[in-house]
Amino acid sequence: MTRAALVQQIISKKNMLCIGLDSDIEKLPAHFPQNPDGLLQFNKSIIESTLDFCVSYKINLAFYERLGKVGFEVVEETLKLVPDTHFTIADAKRGDIGNTSSYYADAYLNRMNFDSITVAPYMGRDSVEPFLQFDGKWAIILGLTSNAGAQNFELQKLQNGKFLFEEVMTQCAEWGSVENTMFVFGATQTEFLKNARSQFPNHFFLVPGVGSQGGSLGDVMRFGKTDFGGLLINASRSIIYASNKTDFAEAASREAQALAKEMSTYF
Amino acid sequence: MTRAALVQQIISKKNMLCIGLDSDIEKLPAHFPQNPDGLLQFNKSIIESTLDFCVSYKINLAFYERLGKVGFEVVEETLKLVPDTHFTIADAKRGDIGNTSSYYADAYLNRMNFDSITVAPYMGRDSVEPFLQFDGKWAIILGLTSNAGAQNFELQKLQNGKFLFEEVMTQCAEWGSVENTMFVFGATQTEFLKNARSQFPNHFFLVPGVGSQGGSLGDVMRFGKTDFGGLLINASRSIIYASNKTDFAEAASREAQALAKEMSTYF
Repeated sequence: MTRAALVQQIISKKNMLCIGLDSDIEKLPAHFPQNPDGLLQFNKSIIESTLDFCVSYKINLAFYERLGKVGFEVVEETLKLVPDTHFTIADAKRGDIGNTSSYYADAYLNRMNFDSITVAPYMGRDSVEPFLQFDGKWAIILGLTSNAGAQNFELQKLQNGKFLFEEVMTQCAEWGSVENTMFVFGATQTEFLKNARSQFPNHFFLVPGVGSQGGSLGDVMRFGKTDFGGLLINASRSIIYASNKTDFAEAASREAQALAKEMSTYF
Repeated sequence: MTRAALVQQIISKKNMLCIGLDSDIEKLPAHFPQNPDGLLQFNKSIIESTLDFCVSYKINLAFYERLGKVGFEVVEETLKLVPDTHFTIADAKRGDIGNTSSYYADAYLNRMNFDSITVAPYMGRDSVEPFLQFDGKWAIILGLTSNAGAQNFELQKLQNGKFLFEEVMTQCAEWGSVENTMFVFGATQTEFLKNARSQFPNHFFLVPGVGSQGGSLGDVMRFGKTDFGGLLINASRSIIYASNKTDFAEAASREAQALAKEMSTYF
């Protein structure tokens, strides 16, 4: 999906919600079979009941990879259930030497046809660039993440005065463009978000950490939103596990709608 | 595989060669079908012809993931062809927030039963620790990699005077032990290897970059080898694509044997 098409979706819907399909075969509502088919049916119900209240779906690969080959089948089938209007994210955190990264890029952006993939930047330029070679496809590069471990390395100060995450964002922004590069910026990191937005006014940020991880949606909107939207705000567990009973789809819909409504007040 | 068992294999064989199964369906010898079955048969021939000249096999997941679900089937089948005497590595470079990393760990170390997995440390402690929870299993954490992109971030100097890769190794060494933590250290980085070895005298290093990437085996052995071995030295393309004709298995065997012979002179 091109930047123009994504911006159009966000502005017309007054919505930047991304729903994370961190679907856990062991946490399906009790009336679902705990097997790959149950997982796919769960994803189908979640997608159908939330489609009107979000602009994007993010598939967390770990939850599927764990099931081996049948897990990958569920990913492929789930992806087919997402309409072209919605931006799709392979949350895979891949990154390796150039020839290997080019194969991950081929796998997710070309063959599986996701719009985007999350990318781990530690190995540098040749590990990132293979994800920037497809028109209308995106690398979503880890900037400052929402977890406690962000303190360990991302928030180390470099001798040039920058935090590591700022150096990563600065260099990566030069390798790609605002048409193919986004950054992950955790919702729990709002003290840094305002500054990152002023440094990178034209990049999209994928913001996880609202909901179960405790980030404030209001702060994220105030500090991160731009004229073109500029954000995809992810919620996973707080939506997909809003209920574990037969009303799980209605509960997910209600949670998504509540977030969408709050977002719309900032447009 | 426990540290004691790995050390015993290395010392008794005077060998620390790891063969990287970066097997590319598009680069199989001409007499193989370019399909998943051809890929598996290729891996089988490579394993059978090199088993006596190495102590480890590394499966580069990107080359299989790219094929979707059938790719994962080839990984599972390939793994069954490796005897228990050989240390197995899922070269996956995974790493995510805690609950997601725990699913990657479960996938590769538990369900697929690899001995180890390569781990990307950017997201910090809670992204790494889930890989350290299995007896006799290992996280092989990216330290200083062999690619040009290592310059971008890994070799950034921090305000505490360390390179980022040194800070990563220092902190990660505290989270785990020498029984469950190894580091990736590129063979092209020998100017740093000597120092890293003195800082981490008891850790295993997985060393890629000998062969096609140009690292010197002699330098790696001189600067990195310890009494307990201390190294797994990986070669991929230079062995598995030593010939693309019907003699590919003999050629792979010859290349592995040559590396093994050179290694043995340092014991």
